[in-house]
Amino acid sequence: MESKNLFKANVSPKKVIVNDGFFGKYIELIKKVALPYQWDVLNDRINNAEPSHAVRNFKIAAGLLKGDFYGVVFQDTDVFKWLEAVAYILMAGPDAELENKADEVINIIEKAQQGDGYLNTYFTIKEPDKRWTNIRDGHELYCAGHMIEASVAYFEATGKRKFLDVACRFADYIDTVFGEGPDKKRGYPGHPGIELALVRLYKATGEKKYLYLSKYFIDERGKTPNYFELEVEADREDKNEIWKKLGLRYYQAHLPVRSQTTAEGHSVRAIYLYSGMADIAIETGDKSLIESCKKLWRNIITKKMYITGGIGSTSFGESFTFNYDLPNDTIYSETCASVGLIFFAHRMLQIDPNSNYSDIMEKVLYNSAISGISLDGKKFFYVNPLEVWPEASEKIKIREHVKITRQSWLRCACCPTNIARLLASIGKYIYSISEDEIYTHLYIDSETELDLSGSKVKIKQETKYPWSERINISVYIDKEKEFSLLLRIPGWCDNAKIFINNEEINLCDIKVKGYARLKRIWKNGDVVEVVLPMVVQRVRAHPGVRADIGKVAIQRGPIVYCLEEVDNGPNLHEIMLPVKSELNADFDKNLLGGVMVVSVQAERYNSKWTDDELYKFEEESEYRPVTVKFIPYYAWANREPGEMVVWINER
Amino acid sequence: MESKNLFKANVSPKKVIVNDGFFGKYIELIKKVALPYQWDVLNDRINNAEPSHAVRNFKIAAGLLKGDFYGVVFQDTDVFKWLEAVAYILMAGPDAELENKADEVINIIEKAQQGDGYLNTYFTIKEPDKRWTNIRDGHELYCAGHMIEASVAYFEATGKRKFLDVACRFADYIDTVFGEGPDKKRGYPGHPGIELALVRLYKATGEKKYLYLSKYFIDERGKTPNYFELEVEADREDKNEIWKKLGLRYYQAHLPVRSQTTAEGHSVRAIYLYSGMADIAIETGDKSLIESCKKLWRNIITKKMYITGGIGSTSFGESFTFNYDLPNDTIYSETCASVGLIFFAHRMLQIDPNSNYSDIMEKVLYNSAISGISLDGKKFFYVNPLEVWPEASEKIKIREHVKITRQSWLRCACCPTNIARLLASIGKYIYSISEDEIYTHLYIDSETELDLSGSKVKIKQETKYPWSERINISVYIDKEKEFSLLLRIPGWCDNAKIFINNEEINLCDIKVKGYARLKRIWKNGDVVEVVLPMVVQRVRAHPGVRADIGKVAIQRGPIVYCLEEVDNGPNLHEIMLPVKSELNADFDKNLLGGVMVVSVQAERYNSKWTDDELYKFEEESEYRPVTVKFIPYYAWANREPGEMVVWINER
Repeated sequence: MESKNLFKANVSPKKVIVNDGFFGKYIELIKKVALPYQWDVLNDRINNAEPSHAVRNFKIAAGLLKGDFYGVVFQDTDVFKWLEAVAYILMAGPDAELENKADEVINIIEKAQQGDGYLNTYFTIKEPDKRWTNIRDGHELYCAGHMIEASVAYFEATGKRKFLDVACRFADYIDTVFGEGPDKKRGYPGHPGIELALVRLYKATGEKKYLYLSKYFIDERGKTPNYFELEVEADREDKNEIWKKLGLRYYQAHLPVRSQTTAEGHSVRAIYLYSGMADIAIETGDKSLIESCKKLWRNIITKKMYITGGIGSTSFGESFTFNYDLPNDTIYSETCASVGLIFFAHRMLQIDPNSNYSDIMEKVLYNSAISGISLDGKKFFYVNPLEVWPEASEKIKIREHVKITRQSWLRCACCPTNIARLLASIGKYIYSISEDEIYTHLYIDSETELDLSGSKVKIKQETKYPWSERINISVYIDKEKEFSLLLRIPGWCDNAKIFINNEEINLCDIKVKGYARLKRIWKNGDVVEVVLPMVVQRVRAHPGVRADIGKVAIQRGPIVYCLEEVDNGPNLHEIMLPVKSELNADFDKNLLGGVMVVSVQAERYNSKWTDDELYKFEEESEYRPVTVKFIPYYAWANREPGEMVVWINER
Repeated sequence: MESKNLFKANVSPKKVIVNDGFFGKYIELIKKVALPYQWDVLNDRINNAEPSHAVRNFKIAAGLLKGDFYGVVFQDTDVFKWLEAVAYILMAGPDAELENKADEVINIIEKAQQGDGYLNTYFTIKEPDKRWTNIRDGHELYCAGHMIEASVAYFEATGKRKFLDVACRFADYIDTVFGEGPDKKRGYPGHPGIELALVRLYKATGEKKYLYLSKYFIDERGKTPNYFELEVEADREDKNEIWKKLGLRYYQAHLPVRSQTTAEGHSVRAIYLYSGMADIAIETGDKSLIESCKKLWRNIITKKMYITGGIGSTSFGESFTFNYDLPNDTIYSETCASVGLIFFAHRMLQIDPNSNYSDIMEKVLYNSAISGISLDGKKFFYVNPLEVWPEASEKIKIREHVKITRQSWLRCACCPTNIARLLASIGKYIYSISEDEIYTHLYIDSETELDLSGSKVKIKQETKYPWSERINISVYIDKEKEFSLLLRIPGWCDNAKIFINNEEINLCDIKVKGYARLKRIWKNGDVVEVVLPMVVQRVRAHPGVRADIGKVAIQRGPIVYCLEEVDNGPNLHEIMLPVKSELNADFDKNLLGGVMVVSVQAERYNSKWTDDELYKFEEESEYRPVTVKFIPYYAWANREPGEMVVWINER
């Protein structure tokens, strides 16, 4: 069932060194601050944060400590995602301290594994006789997925097999429990994730049964009679309110996956599932699966995605809702969903190297994803709103999920380690390759060694992107070689220019699916200069998006902007943007770690109202001119807490 | 503790005949359609409606039928409010059929009364040993209040004492259970309502203990230690989510009532409580209570009321939220809360005859209150939204309380009978009097006989208000008499004119608190003509109301307007109102029972978008001219279901 070479190949993060630019600083932050901090949280050494107990759960399951399980049923995954992030950091270079911590917890994890390979601290400690009885909500397969991902990454980073072996034993055991064979359960995970993990495990080990098991989970999903319905009937009185309202859609189990054409239900489950589907499509060349992936992708990005790349329109079920329903204030836009959307985009780029995917990957990365972590690396957003009214978040039930400051930790702490593992592995999203092509999806200051049908090609990007519109790309190669270097021309960019060794290239004839294809015989030391003019732009939403009608957002390059109260005073809703006003960008090296700031001559509502008036008959409202200051969306909530808004009324 | 004559007196609905104008038609609808229909529902004779079981509960409690209780714990009140509405209809003239039905159910109610006077079908059938153990949520005192109100009205309408005696027996028993004496419970109702009812019972019977019991409930409320907290500790594990988030505020029990200055919690509970406080203030002259009432009133109407007069900003706890939080789409604006706000306004007019109160009473009446009943009298809104997106109501949890069509009946059916009793008694809200003053609060085609320090004064209003701006008021009197006729000059009206016997009066010197005071020696047959020019006006909301910033609403006279999809096509949010466009009113006798329609040259968003675009860089949006048609808000959802919006974007 393989047809791999139809597709472009990804590049291992091991091959990429991200230098000290925009993302280089983030990787340094993850390595030096976020991962040590998260280790302390996972070991319950931070006082002013939600308790984690995650490592303790493993110790209890391993028999090393007495005690009870604490946390959500998937508390284990916090440790696994932390380990995965550590692995990516170790790929970039040694860090004895992190590696020691990782080995320490891997030893405990190994001890927590049961004789038959089973590994899940919740069920081991709390309900040992309830294994696999609640596949819909129990998260056992989801936890296994994160363990597998981490173990593969750690093996690839360090060459150490212990954790990988633990994962294989568990995967082998799962393979005996689920599937089409006699005495096997015909279930599949309520929370997807193991599908993509098993493909990774297959690629790391070469063991095909992992691929088949993943394919089984994908193929089985949503068949009639429905496994989840049978499971509930057999097992329990169902009190799940989400189930009552959203039904099987919540779990993406309402239809077989090849019949699913719209993104439904819990957005993180959905996006992990779609990523797994894409993986299976890549490994098998399954055209119907590719078609489904393309339809689901299209539904998300043309109907259900915020301008920041965030997905998930409501806290109820943390879910997608319906086309064009994108409220800014009761939004969900979970950090994990953004991470997952990058996963999905990255896989779609393997299937079809088209800037439709990489433009969105960039959008998510620079906006809704990195919004999830504070500039100091120790605070995290679960929900990434586009409009914040602090008093409403405090007092209104339907807005209480919208926090106005990032949290030290969370009761359900899926996001902090997820953003850490994404940023630690950012290098792998820059390129994909085939035998004679190098696709450049992202512009990131970095050095990479690529293997092009046996030849080593080094690519060095030098840039201050996303602040600077210039990227210098140097090609180093032992001997001349013909191949195509494809450079993404971002959708936000008009008038891109490309120079090879100072000579401008005519882009008209060489643009393919959003990429400039530079096909030539490359020599060592060739230099490509890419200029992507970054005009500050007004963005409007499709008129179907009721929340944004009559409103405008500001973007420069890939960066979406917002207004914060700390810069513009309270009552941001009173600010209106005139249609014609100039938008000026200036770099402020002292602000928020150094950001491009956008200033605009705007207007502020200025009619006089007394405290006694709630409504009045008024012929015309008054406005006064005011200069407003926009900052990059991702950097909001790093100063005094207050209001924030992305979409501004126009007049 | 009496000081009654400080205050203006209300007028019994018995004294007022509402003729065949705007409200005359509503009364006819209530009498001929709504009450017979509701009787059938209460007796479970309507197939396509939510089951009621309300009469059946009484039959079961009375031992006339076997069976179990069905419904909410306060299901009894549907019958009581129906009886109260019937009483008002009977005051206006005989209706043997309605009276027979009323007597029939009163007989059953009497039989359901327990030996000690207790009367509540839920507790009698379901939990006889749990009486008074959950005063916070059990609604026993609330149910008693509605019974008392109905019994007084029925006694006043028919002179029959049976129901009144039942109520007195229950009230006497309650008086032995609650109060400051030894062995009495120091509780007060979780859902207020009995306070105002007991004052009514006192006034009907002269029995002071009812007044004292009411005053006890008012005075005791919110004292520390808190009764509800003690009750929960003593009785049960508390799983009430609303309690967890809103606490004692939900019940208006967070402070003693005289320390409450802002409207908090469940809006119907709040407004019934404030009405009861005003009643006690009127009966006792308690200045601190008057001050509290004024502060609470002011907080509502200057910070927490929709333009339609609706109150309650969120479905969570059906509650008030905080100042200026008035979302149009997740709104509550329960019909019962509007009815209650009219009660409160009516009482405040006794305390202080000021158009601040009567203007709001009119606003609520013509907009958020009558919006609660369909033009055919058989369908009812619980929630009265200001903006409706049908797909969102169907699919989004936080909007599912916003129905797009009125319902045949409701699981919690408090609103249908509440709007019925309000409309059936509308006559009593027109005037209040003192020894030598007649305050005219409402302009309603009607005839009234008033007793002015012994003299009978007949006032006849002839008008097609609210469509016509002219009201003819004739005064009939046996012999000349000096008194003041005070006529409200509505806040929405500029350039009001008043003529007495065709001679124009200069209003400059005679306007007092929003009323024109016509003090003179009146002769039989004197005619006053009131002209209240009704220009179609733009209304704006205080800029603190974020939901309405940059938006405008349309009002003519007291009537607030809206756009409906059936007149203007889908995507109403794409319609923008230019600041300068003309607003034209025309009466359409064939539309919605005859309404004034407002036409406006507006603009509709016209930029072209493909199905693939969700966001784009666009210099300027395009608009095309379009004529839009506004209808009165109260009349929406009487044709094909679809979108509706009150606040329109301006540009």
